[in-house]
Formats: sequence, C-alpha cells, structure tokens
Amino acid sequence: MPKLRAHNIATSLDGYAAGPKQTRTDPLGRGGEDLHSWMWQTRTGRASMGQDGGDEGIDDRFLRAGNENIGATIMGRNMFGPIRGEWPDESWTGWWGDEPPYRHDVFVLTHHPRPSVSMSGGTTFHFVTDGIRAALDRAVEAAGGRDVRLGGGAATIREYLRAGLVDELHIAVVPILLGGGERLLDDDLVSTYRVAEFVASEGVAHYRLIR
Amino acid sequence: MPKLRAHNIATSLDGYAAGPKQTRTDPLGRGGEDLHSWMWQTRTGRASMGQDGGDEGIDDRFLRAGNENIGATIMGRNMFGPIRGEWPDESWTGWWGDEPPYRHDVFVLTHHPRPSVSMSGGTTFHFVTDGIRAALDRAVEAAGGRDVRLGGGAATIREYLRAGLVDELHIAVVPILLGGGERLLDDDLVSTYRVAEFVASEGVAHYRLIR
Repeated sequence: MPKLRAHNIATSLDGYAAGPKQTRTDPLGRGGEDLHSWMWQTRTGRASMGQDGGDEGIDDRFLRAGNENIGATIMGRNMFGPIRGEWPDESWTGWWGDEPPYRHDVFVLTHHPRPSVSMSGGTTFHFVTDGIRAALDRAVEAAGGRDVRLGGGAATIREYLRAGLVDELHIAVVPILLGGGERLLDDDLVSTYRVAEFVASEGVAHYRLIR
Repeated sequence: MPKLRAHNIATSLDGYAAGPKQTRTDPLGRGGEDLHSWMWQTRTGRASMGQDGGDEGIDDRFLRAGNENIGATIMGRNMFGPIRGEWPDESWTGWWGDEPPYRHDVFVLTHHPRPSVSMSGGTTFHFVTDGIRAALDRAVEAAGGRDVRLGGGAATIREYLRAGLVDELHIAVVPILLGGGERLLDDDLVSTYRVAEFVASEGVAHYRLIR
C-alpha cells in the first residue's frame, strides 16, 4: 500500500512550527525563518532553489529522503500561498516560481474551487474542496503506486494525524525557542507512534515516527 | 553571584518528564523509567550507584557537568520520596540509601516540618516549609559561593521557572513518546531563555538553556 509521509517538518525546541505574529505575508511568524535555515545549507535544499553546492551530511540525507519514492504531494492552502477566501483571480501559482520543485501532482486543500494549473517541469496544482480524505484518494491515484507526501503546513498535518491517516512523520527539531506561535503537535496526536529513528546533526535533531 | 542550575532534566520527545499513571510508588509513571536509562550507561551515572565502568561520551559529560561547582541542592518533596501529608515518622530518608550521592546540604520543599537529617558521606536533608524563595536563600547560604542545583522534579522546576529564579536549565530529550504524563514545560515558561548549547549523543539530545 502507498504510504502518506510527512518529512522535514521543522519545529523549535518548544514545539512550534511557526513563530508568533504570523501574518498572511509572513506565514512563519517572528523567528520562524530560523526553523528552515538548516535546509539551505544542504545540497538538496540548495538544489531546490537552483543553486549548487551545500552540505551532504545528515541533514541532507533527511531532506533527500523526503523526496524518495514520492509520487504526489498534499498541502494546505496556507502552504500554497497567502490568499484567503475566494481566489480573486488565477494569478497566484504558489511560492515556488514558474518551475516548482515538485514535478508531480500537488493537491491543495481549499474551500474555494479553482481549475488545476500546470506549471513548467511537471508540477500540476489541483485544488481539492471536498476534504482531506478526498485529497488523499486523489493523491494516491496520481502517485501511481508510489507514496504520497504530506507537505504541510502544521494545521494540515494535525488534521491528517487526527484522522489517523499519516504513516510516517519526520520531525526536525531545531535548537531554538520561539516562545509562542503555531504548535505542530497537541492533544498527544502522536501517542500511537514510536520513534523509529533518532539522529542529530550539529544543528538539527531528526526524529522519524512510525506506527 | 551563585546560580540556580537544573541539569539532566529528562523529557520525552513529546515533552513529558514522567509517563502517565504516576503513583506514589511509581513516580515516573508508565514508560517513565526509559527517560533515565541513558544515565545508567554512563560512568558518572554508574558511579552514583557505586558501580564501575560506563561510557564517557557526550552523555557522561553532561551528567558530570550537573555536579560541577554545585554546593547545595533543592528538590521537591516528590523527588525526596513517596510520602504525602504529615511525616508519619522520621524513617524515610530518601531514595538513595544510607549514603546519598549529594554530599552537601539538600533542601526539600514540603508543607510539613521535620528535623534535618544528616546522612553518611556528607549529605544533610533539610525540610523547608516557607516556600521556594526561602529554600533558595538557605541553599545559596549553604553552598558557600558555589552554585545551587535545582534537582527536580518537574513541578518544582516549573515553580522556580515561573518565579524567574532559574539561571540555567539543561534538558535531555530522550527519543521516546510517552503519550501523556507530566509535562516539564508549559505556558512558554522558557520564552525568555535561549539555547546556549545543543549537542546529541546516539540516544539523547542535550539542550542547555540560559537567559
């Protein structure tokens, strides 16, 4: 069976996936950028921005693993962009420029219908208005036997965890304190999981949770 | 100025310092023993139980650091023993046998007065009934210029954090999920701190927080 996997989900030591004072144009909140800076040091992270070089150590291995055997991606609307409510037009096509790094079908959870958008490089954004299970069904179909990545953000991951649909969750704990913001986990959402792998780089503690 | 320092405070990945179903005779709750098993692999941990051998790596370094320049210890009553309410007699003298590893004055927070008890090896237990600040004052005095260790448990650490009295907090995150129990931190108690040091062994992620 194809799996639903979330990888490289970064939180602070105090458990926040975004800092306080999140806004539509600053979705990571105050200090939230620091949750992701380790990614841009790695070869895989740099390659996703079209840049050469970068480390190939533990962090890179985990970042790369997040792409392996993935045939489709699901993400929440906040991860797709800052627009809320009805789509004013079809000009917003994500944060990733003309050629998003996904290169497969991406299913965006939204309450507001919109036609699919095909981008350069093989990424097509589909807008799913009938809920997380429908999005998963369509993503599994599109993945053609490979796994489905649960991209984020935190609220979307919590929804899928609450519904018992996540097979694997890789959390990357960054040694900073945000002191507030959006928690990744609450209500013991992962109490049915176990830590299958723990390994840390100089800057990140990686935990791979499975059931 | 002498500092108030808490070291080797173990939590699960989901933030619990003890597992669910804590009882008086099982103060660590279900699965809680696993929070401390790494300590018994180290030279310092084994020495505290009168045993030879053990690892001398990262975990041992952190365990050892918890003893360095410490002249007195404060602990909550639950850490001292399972007895609640009035002391029935003076027979309970802690979990540590006739020769506790402290070898200095230990101030036990309690609502119920009791005479001090001097043990073999230099440890004297004092029972403080007039609050956390009084205990700290007495511990600073007893430490004679060295620092004071805040031994625990979790509730006592939260009390001192809430009062703004903790100078340094070393958290040892063990890669297990307890799914419930006693949280070490809540209410963003450490939002005024920063992570001064992060380093992980194969089995523990160590974070040293200062202000």
